[in-house]
Amino acid sequence: MAEQPQSVVAIYPGSFDPITNGHLDLIRRSSRLFDRLIVSILRNDSKQPLFSLSDRMEMLRDVAAGFPNVEVDCFEGLLVHYAQRRGARVVLRGIRAISDYEYELQMTHMNRRLNPEIETVFLMANDSYSFISSRLVKEVFRLGGDIKELVPASVLARMRERASS
Amino acid sequence: MAEQPQSVVAIYPGSFDPITNGHLDLIRRSSRLFDRLIVSILRNDSKQPLFSLSDRMEMLRDVAAGFPNVEVDCFEGLLVHYAQRRGARVVLRGIRAISDYEYELQMTHMNRRLNPEIETVFLMANDSYSFISSRLVKEVFRLGGDIKELVPASVLARMRERASS
Amino acid sequence: MAEQPQSVVAIYPGSFDPITNGHLDLIRRSSRLFDRLIVSILRNDSKQPLFSLSDRMEMLRDVAAGFPNVEVDCFEGLLVHYAQRRGARVVLRGIRAISDYEYELQMTHMNRRLNPEIETVFLMANDSYSFISSRLVKEVFRLGGDIKELVPASVLARMRERASS
Amino acid sequence: MAEQPQSVVAIYPGSFDPITNGHLDLIRRSSRLFDRLIVSILRNDSKQPLFSLSDRMEMLRDVAAGFPNVEVDCFEGLLVHYAQRRGARVVLRGIRAISDYEYELQMTHMNRRLNPEIETVFLMANDSYSFISSRLVKEVFRLGGDIKELVPASVLARMRERASS
Amino acid sequence: MAEQPQSVVAIYPGSFDPITNGHLDLIRRSSRLFDRLIVSILRNDSKQPLFSLSDRMEMLRDVAAGFPNVEVDCFEGLLVHYAQRRGARVVLRGIRAISDYEYELQMTHMNRRLNPEIETVFLMANDSYSFISSRLVKEVFRLGGDIKELVPASVLARMRERASS
Amino acid sequence: MAEQPQSVVAIYPGSFDPITNGHLDLIRRSSRLFDRLIVSILRNDSKQPLFSLSDRMEMLRDVAAGFPNVEVDCFEGLLVHYAQRRGARVVLRGIRAISDYEYELQMTHMNRRLNPEIETVFLMANDSYSFISSRLVKEVFRLGGDIKELVPASVLARMRERASS
Repeated sequence: MAEQPQSVVAIYPGSFDPITNGHLDLIRRSSRLFDRLIVSILRNDSKQPLFSLSDRMEMLRDVAAGFPNVEVDCFEGLLVHYAQRRGARVVLRGIRAISDYEYELQMTHMNRRLNPEIETVFLMANDSYSFISSRLVKEVFRLGGDIKELVPASVLARMRERASS
Repeated sequence: MAEQPQSVVAIYPGSFDPITNGHLDLIRRSSRLFDRLIVSILRNDSKQPLFSLSDRMEMLRDVAAGFPNVEVDCFEGLLVHYAQRRGARVVLRGIRAISDYEYELQMTHMNRRLNPEIETVFLMANDSYSFISSRLVKEVFRLGGDIKELVPASVLARMRERASS
Repeated sequence: MAEQPQSVVAIYPGSFDPITNGHLDLIRRSSRLFDRLIVSILRNDSKQPLFSLSDRMEMLRDVAAGFPNVEVDCFEGLLVHYAQRRGARVVLRGIRAISDYEYELQMTHMNRRLNPEIETVFLMANDSYSFISSRLVKEVFRLGGDIKELVPASVLARMRERASS
Repeated sequence: MAEQPQSVVAIYPGSFDPITNGHLDLIRRSSRLFDRLIVSILRNDSKQPLFSLSDRMEMLRDVAAGFPNVEVDCFEGLLVHYAQRRGARVVLRGIRAISDYEYELQMTHMNRRLNPEIETVFLMANDSYSFISSRLVKEVFRLGGDIKELVPASVLARMRERASS
Repeated sequence: MAEQPQSVVAIYPGSFDPITNGHLDLIRRSSRLFDRLIVSILRNDSKQPLFSLSDRMEMLRDVAAGFPNVEVDCFEGLLVHYAQRRGARVVLRGIRAISDYEYELQMTHMNRRLNPEIETVFLMANDSYSFISSRLVKEVFRLGGDIKELVPASVLARMRERASS
Repeated sequence: MAEQPQSVVAIYPGSFDPITNGHLDLIRRSSRLFDRLIVSILRNDSKQPLFSLSDRMEMLRDVAAGFPNVEVDCFEGLLVHYAQRRGARVVLRGIRAISDYEYELQMTHMNRRLNPEIETVFLMANDSYSFISSRLVKEVFRLGGDIKELVPASVLARMRERASS
């Protein structure tokens, strides 16, 4: 009945539009906990992203380059189906606020019902990053605010590039 | 800067007075995620437990026996100091409710400040167990309610034994 | 000043797009508490439903057939006006999460101000159904997930029909 | 499978130490919803009440006198056992705040597991009473604050009597 | 290091589409706390307001007329930049519910990062107004409900005017 | 009807057992907003403090020395009575978490009922201090953890003194 872990693969799913320093902190911290971490962009045709899928994957690969056990990928369809295809036992989520928590709770129960073998694991955002979301970063930037402490340098460069084009 | 996990040890701390089916579910699920799991009783002299430390360790060992990578232990003092002594990189916590979440958030930030190398990881209670706490189990039992679906059989036996003595 | 209940009519309003097993559980449980229960679909022209009003009423009638004191209806305009027209003293609501609770709290205070004679009564979702919402059911189905434990069989049949047409 | 309500009995349990205007509002509102309402004091030997059980029952009877279908009682042991003995199908609870809600959620799930036939039904406190609790009323009174809008007149008289004795 | 307040200017930002009695209560209460209060409409081109900016400013000026130290204004761009331009040290926010609180917490941390000199100060809505929001007022009015206790008389007149035109 | 502020006095009440860097941050920030700030220790005989009232006042005076418009005091009885005696129009509170918020909400409504002229004003804890409470600081210190970033130097000195005596 007991089953020891051999090589644990974790998936960190998200939109990453764009990746923030909060995401980067979570990647750094969780890469130390699991044998392999797949940071994977959910393709969601109903949302209009700021950055194209290929731009987002490139930005993720930039920041993931320093972590040998981190891979960047994208997926469509149900997360639990994708996790199964990739042999992942863990889905990783960051929580910042109570409302995050509630949504995550509902999704976790649903995913557990869909596949009880896949475990959702939560890490809490570092207090310096708990107020950062991709949406807020984009809004502050659009209104002329300074975001250089909120996103990796490569993301800032791309945002400036887009804004000036 | 990047550091790959070799053997990840996780600590699951608690009072376990007594262990419930909710705790057992968390042990089962998390034993599959980490190389080694130490379920460890916090010795807290200011609380008056129902079961002695040695009784609680015995009950934990009973239920942990089926999991080869799970060890039972106890500790005093700061959790982060204990984790460091045991070479553990992960502290494991279950969350059931928003108020749990708030308390855990505060402790997580404090522990991170005390030792940023130790990561707190959260698993959400299974919906069938989310209403079970050691405190509530003891109260229902004391008032004559049936708790046989709420605790392992060995714990039920001990509770009956105590009540009849 | 005191007024004894004679025949208490309760309204359970919602979109029911489509009805889920969580809704069905609430209908079953509340039909035992009140003399008459009216399950009533709110016609909301600003929302684009998956199923037409007549389809939703048909699905509701299917599942309500087994309950002699349950009636299916629809309404437009303010809920408190509708309740008054139907001679209902109770509005019934299910709660699953804190965010539900907050929204319901605001609506309850508003409805009380609009008509203090009408009482909003809450039942908590059964833990097995607390993660099910119509929105989530539709999303899981669209992404190819299995929803047969989440909705009544008649609803599943209709969803498959729509998907294949 | 369906079962129509005949005569629905509801229990409103609590400490009522002392009864406040918030409790009274809930009694008034719920007496209109159920055929019979039993307001029942939980005897809890581990808590040190301000008023004796017989004093609290007398104060409750004073305020309940105006409601022909309301009875005052007290009980020991598990609430669901008591409800069953009294033929009650409903347990009535007031909610004021999120933290109330959380505690009530846990108790509701536990009670449902202990006896699925007994339904817990929630009413939200009126906004004028949402900040009133027995504990806070006692504290404000002890510190010399004016509580005459917070408790029934008969309760105020008794509190003054106690304070001057 | 210490710096005494000379003349403290506070900004109360919002959409005010339309101003409600809840907003008015907050203006009245906070005008007593700060030397000067600027009630300022955020111009947000992505939202489709019911009332035009000039209509909203006129309605605000109507209700602000009775307060000599209250000024009405509007702004675009980042709130902290606007506050700095206006020499304001305080941003004032009302909180009604937990979800308000969460959003406000995130914005407060972001604004503090953007300009630590500007302080966000919170007042809690009066319990009689805690369920009133501009959105809900508009919805109740559209569905034929009575809103005369929810908005100033001048706002009610304008809403009726619009509805009949 | 309108009344302009002349000189606004604010009270910041608490136990301050001991004062933490989170308290100090709030004193610094709010001293800039009001003409005069009274930091006042609530004498509560039912709580067993770690430091005596005179020790706590001395520690507060140490840290308040740098702020010319901050005074240290203590009080018994109802806060609103004390505020009235001191001519204070504002009660200042820090909020860190949702549960703080709930408790504060209840107290605010009660205080408003007791004296509607006194306004409770909230500031959110800085994210670096949101996890610090006097209780947690004492616990970490007792268990041998390092608290030098959590309290003012003068408080740390006194805590060490007490521990070694």
